[in-house]
Amino acid sequence: MGARLADFERAVVTSAPHLTPAESAVVQRELSELRALGLRDGLLATMRRVATAVPDRLYEDSAEVLLRMHEIAGSGNLQSCLSSLPTVRACFDLGLMASSGVGAPADLIVGRGHIAPSFYAEQYVRGTLPFLPLAALHQGGLTGVVHQDWGFRNTMRYSLGVGLAQAVSRAWEVKRRGDARKVVCLAGDGELHEGVTFECVRFADEAGLDNLVMVVDANDKGIEPLLKPLNRDYLRSYFRTVAEIDGRDCATVRAALADLLDAPGPTALVCRTHKDGHSFRRPATSAVKPSFAATGGRRLAELRQRSGRELAVFTADLAARFGLPGQVPYQNVGLAESLSIGLTLSLPAEHLKVVATDAMYYMDSLSMLTEASTSVRNLLVLAGRNWAAWGGSANAYNLLGLIANTRVYEPITAAEFQACTDRLERLPSTVHVLSMVDARFEEPTVDCSADIDDGVWLDAPEADDVDVAVVSFGYASTLVAEANASLGIPHLHCAALNPVLREELVERLSRFRHVLSVEYNGVRGGFGEWLRNRYLLPVAVHGVEADIDNCVHDIQLQRHGMSPAQLRDLLVSFGNSEEARYAIART
Amino acid sequence: MGARLADFERAVVTSAPHLTPAESAVVQRELSELRALGLRDGLLATMRRVATAVPDRLYEDSAEVLLRMHEIAGSGNLQSCLSSLPTVRACFDLGLMASSGVGAPADLIVGRGHIAPSFYAEQYVRGTLPFLPLAALHQGGLTGVVHQDWGFRNTMRYSLGVGLAQAVSRAWEVKRRGDARKVVCLAGDGELHEGVTFECVRFADEAGLDNLVMVVDANDKGIEPLLKPLNRDYLRSYFRTVAEIDGRDCATVRAALADLLDAPGPTALVCRTHKDGHSFRRPATSAVKPSFAATGGRRLAELRQRSGRELAVFTADLAARFGLPGQVPYQNVGLAESLSIGLTLSLPAEHLKVVATDAMYYMDSLSMLTEASTSVRNLLVLAGRNWAAWGGSANAYNLLGLIANTRVYEPITAAEFQACTDRLERLPSTVHVLSMVDARFEEPTVDCSADIDDGVWLDAPEADDVDVAVVSFGYASTLVAEANASLGIPHLHCAALNPVLREELVERLSRFRHVLSVEYNGVRGGFGEWLRNRYLLPVAVHGVEADIDNCVHDIQLQRHGMSPAQLRDLLVSFGNSEEARYAIART
Repeated sequence: MGARLADFERAVVTSAPHLTPAESAVVQRELSELRALGLRDGLLATMRRVATAVPDRLYEDSAEVLLRMHEIAGSGNLQSCLSSLPTVRACFDLGLMASSGVGAPADLIVGRGHIAPSFYAEQYVRGTLPFLPLAALHQGGLTGVVHQDWGFRNTMRYSLGVGLAQAVSRAWEVKRRGDARKVVCLAGDGELHEGVTFECVRFADEAGLDNLVMVVDANDKGIEPLLKPLNRDYLRSYFRTVAEIDGRDCATVRAALADLLDAPGPTALVCRTHKDGHSFRRPATSAVKPSFAATGGRRLAELRQRSGRELAVFTADLAARFGLPGQVPYQNVGLAESLSIGLTLSLPAEHLKVVATDAMYYMDSLSMLTEASTSVRNLLVLAGRNWAAWGGSANAYNLLGLIANTRVYEPITAAEFQACTDRLERLPSTVHVLSMVDARFEEPTVDCSADIDDGVWLDAPEADDVDVAVVSFGYASTLVAEANASLGIPHLHCAALNPVLREELVERLSRFRHVLSVEYNGVRGGFGEWLRNRYLLPVAVHGVEADIDNCVHDIQLQRHGMSPAQLRDLLVSFGNSEEARYAIART
Repeated sequence: MGARLADFERAVVTSAPHLTPAESAVVQRELSELRALGLRDGLLATMRRVATAVPDRLYEDSAEVLLRMHEIAGSGNLQSCLSSLPTVRACFDLGLMASSGVGAPADLIVGRGHIAPSFYAEQYVRGTLPFLPLAALHQGGLTGVVHQDWGFRNTMRYSLGVGLAQAVSRAWEVKRRGDARKVVCLAGDGELHEGVTFECVRFADEAGLDNLVMVVDANDKGIEPLLKPLNRDYLRSYFRTVAEIDGRDCATVRAALADLLDAPGPTALVCRTHKDGHSFRRPATSAVKPSFAATGGRRLAELRQRSGRELAVFTADLAARFGLPGQVPYQNVGLAESLSIGLTLSLPAEHLKVVATDAMYYMDSLSMLTEASTSVRNLLVLAGRNWAAWGGSANAYNLLGLIANTRVYEPITAAEFQACTDRLERLPSTVHVLSMVDARFEEPTVDCSADIDDGVWLDAPEADDVDVAVVSFGYASTLVAEANASLGIPHLHCAALNPVLREELVERLSRFRHVLSVEYNGVRGGFGEWLRNRYLLPVAVHGVEADIDNCVHDIQLQRHGMSPAQLRDLLVSFGNSEEARYAIART
């Protein structure tokens, strides 16, 4: 997903209203340099040359740079970045970020993947990065998650705990070939809640990986406050040395880390830090409609009332995202999705169980979910659909839909949400997975609430319309509707990932010469392929084939050919072009 | 999957050669009683009545009963059952197995799911079960894994660590409603390697579940010996009290467990035990061909030689199953599949990485696998396909096939295995997932090794054959070939789950009036549906729609309509019957 010149040019336009005059001037000069150099020698090498060519520094303090980066981007994990900043500075001071690891005294793996901006800010003040990419954070130019393109030894997609696995993998290999080199892993105390981190910690001890140094940012918070602080005795049970220091002071971290680089391991360094909140949001200038996902709590409160059932809600640190606080009681389990599903396994059959986390986080818990789907009644799975800077997963719903006894829906109106839960009430032994979209959109005036498994025409065909029709799934229906506003092409909306269409509808669809399906979802095993397989309808499938990038939603839409403008072009050209089949615009 | 009278009748026929005359006589009397009573009142209640009606006990010692059960069944986890037997006896002595939990002093969750036979043996000697079901172990009558049908409070499918989640779920609910009742969980030290058990243990502490009592059978073995004994300091870091005793003595276990039932928790009881091996096999009367999966080690040794690549093999305790010992070096990681994948993340790009475990065990590691599939080159995933007593997963391959940058194959000849690895050599950034079948079969004389993505005719059509054809995937091809031996219906074999057929073949298939696809694999998202979706071929799909049961392979084949005799009937009737579409025989 290497960024290109055009990404920076576009990002600068997007950022412009948020830049100070001084920043604007510098960024324009850097952009000129970048244009002159091109990206032939690779992204990072070129950026280094731009930094050399435009040596002016606007800020001396990387904390101030971090704040500016987030104010410009409008979102991100500023507080997490600040919490780790002294540790990041210590890593630079100790030479752990030496270019490509050459000459570095140890290998650094950054497991707290979303603190990448701290490294960029530090590189900026040290003169090795220009301001330009920092002003393009989350805008398709600079990713907020560690990536080899940006000088990190490891790349993370988004799974928590993966960084520690990467570090243990590296330590195992270094040890195997008899090298005495250390491997340093930056981790977070929230992340250490994930089961896989235990597997790594346990294995490092059992396999005698005396070259592993785990540095923990202990700010007592995941996304929400931890139920209890990180268990130091647990660390001591697996690490030969566990040092604990004030992680807010760079010199202290530097000295302690330097000591551990010389000590026999595995060792752990606990850095006590402080984090104010989790996500940074630019203050809104006017009232912002909540995302659909954030209405989850209100919907659950209504459901609880309506059903009269006792409710048990488990979330892996994502109560805020689903709007749970103040609406329904819930149990936060920390960053541990398998556990959140596991906690439903022995509850009374008649209770309504709700699990709420991001769709992609269920991907490491599908066997646990199968245990639930084969034994738990009245189970509602809220699967957040995230297109924010932290990423998402294109295939999550298709995988969830293949689990035994599950059905996946993407409601886009309150009535559709209710229809899904009414269906669960009728069919309590089927797990109902609800894709909860992290986006703000106008709800359509007609929906599938009358029969949540069927489709409904948002634009109905005339009797003699037999040319082109479009069928869309969930949130994509809102994008298609916008694209189609001035076109009036017959448009069918479905809320079910695997709709069961009434016969008349199948027959009507089969009379069109060309049918396009649109889903903001992975093509493989998805909605469009279901229509082809189930009904042998020769629909052309438009959806996501690549993974979802780490950039803001507007840019994601563009990259996946899902912006209303792109969809409008597609609808116009579709009837005339055979090429539109599986067409994924990626401009 | 409740057992039926017919299951016991059939099991008795299967078991007959292995029963002593005294056992035979008792079992026949019990079967008569069962026939007279029917199963109207439920399986367990009826079995209790049979036990009362035929009170004779053939054995006094449940250890002897366990041995006989396994000698009769011919397979199972005898040693694990013996290792936990004193603890199981203690649970009975303390009244924890009181009928339906009524009157029991605490709730018992059996997390070591495969020690169910210890409970049956103990119930037999205590007069509450007849011998009949014990003689039907793994034969479709009695499951070797805990199930509510057989008097357990919990049912397990097969995931390790789920039992602890069930116990913590129960403890959470009991605590929430203010009940002082304890929840006892029987776990194993191997099982405590799984990340999810850490999530449970951590949460029990953090949520203050003072009603949880975890009993650990510490025999220092998972399937293979543990790298290090269970870390007691780890337990002490999360449990308020950790007691350790000689677990081979029932009275000692009983006394210690009784104490913990009165102590504030969460508490853990470590029972030091001993386990000789893992799996019981009836001594073979003649040389047994190894399963296809067990040839994995030899194939990897050849591949290592051929490719000249450095090889890193990681397995979660399943080295024996894939025939690794003596063939290639490997790293056992203990029961921790996410870790086994994670360990490939930072190895040199040119090394060949192999991960080997059961297909279903990857289901809790699909996000980790996605991390690998988007970043690791030269990765071969061996995914064991198990139809043994411990179960399997019908949808595992379909899920694996949906992960970005993966391709799934089920080779059934050495040449096909090699063709898959040759393909990996050509396309190192695609993860190649190889279904490794745990079955013994005759390899076909022609195969897909020339083009592993295409199909090959095992029975070629004549030019004028346009009536019926059958297309099959992987291992199912051997079953269809056997069924088709005397029929000679055109039969195409594919080794790819998602074949990419040459145009001529698609055209040829489309000329048949009826095409049947057969896969011993989940229908949803599987091979047959791929043919429908990809080629819009109106094939009728025959495959697995239910889950895979806990019984021996011969019976599984019958239950899924996959026995050669059933397939022969299907092939004969298929051309005449519209009903054969999605036909799943389950006799």
